[in-house]
Amino acid sequence: MRFPAAGNSAIPDHGGSLARARTLFPHAPEPWIDLSTGINPHSYPLFDLPATSLTRLPEPGLTRALAGVAASTYGAQSPGNIVPAPGTQILLPRVYSLAAPGKVLILGPTYSEHRRAAVLCGHDAAETSDFETLATADLAVVVNPNNPDGRIVSREKLVDLAAILRRRGGLLVVDEAFMDVGPRQESLCGDVGEGGIVVLRSFGKFFGLAGLRLGFAVASEEIARQLDAELGPWAVAGPALEYGLRALGDLQWQDAMRGRLAAEAAQLDQLLLRYGIAVHGGTSLFRHIARPDAARLFEVLGERGILLRNFAERRDELRAGLPGSEAGWQRLETALAAWAMQHERAAMRAGVSR
Amino acid sequence: MRFPAAGNSAIPDHGGSLARARTLFPHAPEPWIDLSTGINPHSYPLFDLPATSLTRLPEPGLTRALAGVAASTYGAQSPGNIVPAPGTQILLPRVYSLAAPGKVLILGPTYSEHRRAAVLCGHDAAETSDFETLATADLAVVVNPNNPDGRIVSREKLVDLAAILRRRGGLLVVDEAFMDVGPRQESLCGDVGEGGIVVLRSFGKFFGLAGLRLGFAVASEEIARQLDAELGPWAVAGPALEYGLRALGDLQWQDAMRGRLAAEAAQLDQLLLRYGIAVHGGTSLFRHIARPDAARLFEVLGERGILLRNFAERRDELRAGLPGSEAGWQRLETALAAWAMQHERAAMRAGVSR
Repeated sequence: MRFPAAGNSAIPDHGGSLARARTLFPHAPEPWIDLSTGINPHSYPLFDLPATSLTRLPEPGLTRALAGVAASTYGAQSPGNIVPAPGTQILLPRVYSLAAPGKVLILGPTYSEHRRAAVLCGHDAAETSDFETLATADLAVVVNPNNPDGRIVSREKLVDLAAILRRRGGLLVVDEAFMDVGPRQESLCGDVGEGGIVVLRSFGKFFGLAGLRLGFAVASEEIARQLDAELGPWAVAGPALEYGLRALGDLQWQDAMRGRLAAEAAQLDQLLLRYGIAVHGGTSLFRHIARPDAARLFEVLGERGILLRNFAERRDELRAGLPGSEAGWQRLETALAAWAMQHERAAMRAGVSR
Repeated sequence: MRFPAAGNSAIPDHGGSLARARTLFPHAPEPWIDLSTGINPHSYPLFDLPATSLTRLPEPGLTRALAGVAASTYGAQSPGNIVPAPGTQILLPRVYSLAAPGKVLILGPTYSEHRRAAVLCGHDAAETSDFETLATADLAVVVNPNNPDGRIVSREKLVDLAAILRRRGGLLVVDEAFMDVGPRQESLCGDVGEGGIVVLRSFGKFFGLAGLRLGFAVASEEIARQLDAELGPWAVAGPALEYGLRALGDLQWQDAMRGRLAAEAAQLDQLLLRYGIAVHGGTSLFRHIARPDAARLFEVLGERGILLRNFAERRDELRAGLPGSEAGWQRLETALAAWAMQHERAAMRAGVSR
């Protein structure tokens, strides 16, 4: 038996765990205000699931219908370009296995699961902050818009990069997990037909239904068939099929939600700025903060039951999702006021001692 | 890019599709009585899911708790032996990738996805009806109890086989999809510690919740870590976690259900026999029929809205699940009476013409 890279494969924290929050801040007031993910706090309206969505095997016809709706909503040319999956996470090693072990370059810093999955598949994987360098890889990865800083690469540049890689038999992976709230004209979902491109789309983030586990690969029909074969029949659970069909087809809800999230993201920026915290980027689903005292801000808010996302490997960065409820906004404001007061006192003490 | 075996990878029928039934028998009365799967028609009692099971990312702690309950119920030595997954189907290529491409022998005839997954992973895969031959493989596969004929291999024989394979660095895969209603003392879940064995356990069949997509690999902690790494975080959806925790821990329901299913399987055998159809094996969740006129029986029942499982590659075999409802039993009996009458007429015509 072979165990390619089990030593490197332990799964790190990605936010969203209240159990972890309670361990870090055992005295914090409940309920927690979880701002540690980029998941929409305003979920698509919940509805009663038909019992058969739990009891029966998912009908292949429903999965095909979901691919059709996804193709239309994401702007892919054909349902044959769409691979429905139980979340994009489980697709990562399958996508990285499409290329023989080689050199993987990831435009970073970004979501760390890409590197973990690439290494798991036997690749030599590294992050680079230089877009031009990606063209030297066998397999290049761009998260677009990027998580956590919201950086956007134009479709034009990505299509050019894909053409260079394709000529050498390489592959471009574009993770569009947050493209629902991004500049959608930069999506590559309509450009996958020639091959050499795999786009990943998440359902759970924008629709606020991360527990359902639903995501898609968008790729040439040849690649899509290969990924479908790896997943096998019944890859998507009944509840995810029901919600996926209804929510992905509901363009009116999607448009209204985009407006609402943009307004709330602006409100969050203003609130943070009022207490001296500048936002450096992000998307409507999360805001990116970079400051030397980020670890202290994480702690002050954590002690007050408000969980931000911190990064073990980049201590001066934080990511903040949207509070979602009126109570959440108020508790965030109270916590930020406490932070600002501590900050001011510290500045005064620094002044006195000088 | 590489496409190892996409040509061989199309997914065939496995029963359970009413859309397929309607295409085959467009004039059949609705609703369909679906006997084409081995899924328990008496599902674990449905309950209201907490909204957070849909909206939030699954808590890693819940997944660990589910592994604990599964270890206890399946008789594994430790939760570290358990890999929770969105169904066992998606695990097959991952399990077959644990061994370098080599010779895979599958004790057959059996569930055809094993061969498809093995070929997809680059193996040279074949079915054999001779148990002793399995010892010559790099990777051997036994479905226990077998689908569709219910054949059982003793734990003792399997442990011996695993030891032979292990000495050569080989692997034994035991698919215990129907072991919940099998002779559980023959399960290998408690024997995986030394390595060289992967057991697969299905949740959806016995608990009648196939739409949720939940299954487990049971293996040494080393193999389990490797499989966990391939699946990545949040592999099991929130609804599957909720039902898995409750149902797998409910030993009282499980015991009562085993008794009920055994009684209903006996009732089905008697009903079939009353109309001249002998049952040749199976489990409490499905019965196996082998007769030269199987295709005709499939058609006569299909035209009456009762779907059996037929097998493209073995035309003289059928599999019949349990009807579940009083209406289902009655419609099955009416259809069988029609079958018997046609049969008698045909026999009489044969007598007259002689």
